[in-house]
Amino acid sequence: MDRIVECVPNFSEGRDPAVVAGLAEAVERVEGALVLGTHVDADHNRSVITFVAPPEQVVEAAVSVVARAAELIDLRAHAGQHPRMGACDVLPFIPVRGVTVEECVALAHEAGRRVWQELGIPVYFYESAALRPERRNLADVRRGGFELLRERIGADPERAPDVGEPRVHPSAGACIVGVRPLLIAYNVNLKTNDLAAAKRIAAAVRERGGGLAHLKALGFELVSRGVVQVSMNLTSYERTNLHQAFEAVRREAAALGVEVLGSEIVGLVPQAALDRAASHFLMLENYSPDLVLENRIAAALRRKEREGGA
Amino acid sequence: MDRIVECVPNFSEGRDPAVVAGLAEAVERVEGALVLGTHVDADHNRSVITFVAPPEQVVEAAVSVVARAAELIDLRAHAGQHPRMGACDVLPFIPVRGVTVEECVALAHEAGRRVWQELGIPVYFYESAALRPERRNLADVRRGGFELLRERIGADPERAPDVGEPRVHPSAGACIVGVRPLLIAYNVNLKTNDLAAAKRIAAAVRERGGGLAHLKALGFELVSRGVVQVSMNLTSYERTNLHQAFEAVRREAAALGVEVLGSEIVGLVPQAALDRAASHFLMLENYSPDLVLENRIAAALRRKEREGGA
Repeated sequence: MDRIVECVPNFSEGRDPAVVAGLAEAVERVEGALVLGTHVDADHNRSVITFVAPPEQVVEAAVSVVARAAELIDLRAHAGQHPRMGACDVLPFIPVRGVTVEECVALAHEAGRRVWQELGIPVYFYESAALRPERRNLADVRRGGFELLRERIGADPERAPDVGEPRVHPSAGACIVGVRPLLIAYNVNLKTNDLAAAKRIAAAVRERGGGLAHLKALGFELVSRGVVQVSMNLTSYERTNLHQAFEAVRREAAALGVEVLGSEIVGLVPQAALDRAASHFLMLENYSPDLVLENRIAAALRRKEREGGA
Repeated sequence: MDRIVECVPNFSEGRDPAVVAGLAEAVERVEGALVLGTHVDADHNRSVITFVAPPEQVVEAAVSVVARAAELIDLRAHAGQHPRMGACDVLPFIPVRGVTVEECVALAHEAGRRVWQELGIPVYFYESAALRPERRNLADVRRGGFELLRERIGADPERAPDVGEPRVHPSAGACIVGVRPLLIAYNVNLKTNDLAAAKRIAAAVRERGGGLAHLKALGFELVSRGVVQVSMNLTSYERTNLHQAFEAVRREAAALGVEVLGSEIVGLVPQAALDRAASHFLMLENYSPDLVLENRIAAALRRKEREGGA
């Protein structure tokens, strides 16, 4: 796959495994779409499917899974702590390789139109796909959830959908479609139980505190291990990568007399982020993906397939 | 490709590009075989082709390229500084993924038998494929080259081939077939022109000097840059990886008051070696290839193909 869009729909069902399996199956019926993982959260009664597809197929896969969610999930019977306003509650498109944010916005808008036209589910666009500035932030769009939206959608022009008539789908609610960057969730654990230290370090390294660009950070307690953690989101690893985040935390921790215990990646990480970290620490003068045996094999395979030799 | 054998045949022709192209073409005619690169050395009048194939196809590709070399290269008309005794001079098999050394030895022996039976070229086995201890070292097998071998092969039982009758092929000579480990060539450049320092550091870090296992190292001058270099071969990156070699050189250099300028990989490096370096320096507690987005995509693709869904 030379061009890859990731799609990470969130569904309002996290207790019935048959429903989640049915949703994943709807994605994979679409040629070119690949499910990378599913995450089921019974506490929140919510699940997440991560899939990838080429841009040509990703909209079909996304609309298919929203349709399946509308068949399988009835919001009127759904309870859970997490705010939600749709059976398929959130549908983010993420540029991964060979695709721009702008192309993903066009795909998100196309998906939104089809969700309304084919399924009768009204659509709101958020983050990079937002059509109104006050809808960039997902939490603002979702405030009050399905029950409040159902009351207000017809009466309050501020709650009118971006696509579709101002009425919720009776059982599937509404769908919030957006484009967000590829995000790496990365935690650095510290050899102390001093939560204040973790919070100070987080405040120093994150963009909001004048630290590294494209870095969000919070300090947390890891109660089970008796230590604290700086929990980070890297929203542009091309600009601020794992090694820069790690070194910034280590430096700020050292200034407080605190040592780093280790770090962990939550979810998935692009190969390029690990390669850039290796290259940085090894001070490699000639790193290129072309040095990597597996990449050369993949390139030779593509060449031979193009030449019709295999 | 789940199981990969690399094969790096050396040929006694480094001036005629048509010959090298013909050799590469002979490899790629075999299904499953992929040429990753060719290296042509006009000074030594010698060339190297790097290819990979699954174990089921690698012998066919290897025998095909030895056959093509016998058609295209006449050793009687060949001159060059590098010692050689065959048109295809050396044929090493290298286990890369999902294949043991023992399996590669069996493949090398099979290739050797076919080279004699199908092409009438006598074969010597070296390194892990050696049948006599005095033939483990390639340089010992090749001593005196084609011209001396031609004189002695029939008369001296010490020069009798491992497979075949004791006479050289008139134009293609003999072929030396072996199994060697995957090797990473890795150099660390130092901020000094003190060659003695580079030699001392090399002596301290290499296995022979009581340093790191599976590490060979020499000190060199980089005349063009006015600095010196510790040039290393890692013969088992699973045991001694890039980061361990880098840190050992940096430590020994620091003890001499010398700084590291940078490092470079020569040739190809397995992805796992870079990943292990990244994981080490980031102190990752949960590294697994399964965390890498591209690996998850590849695994999902294989699963979908198995299920017949794509």
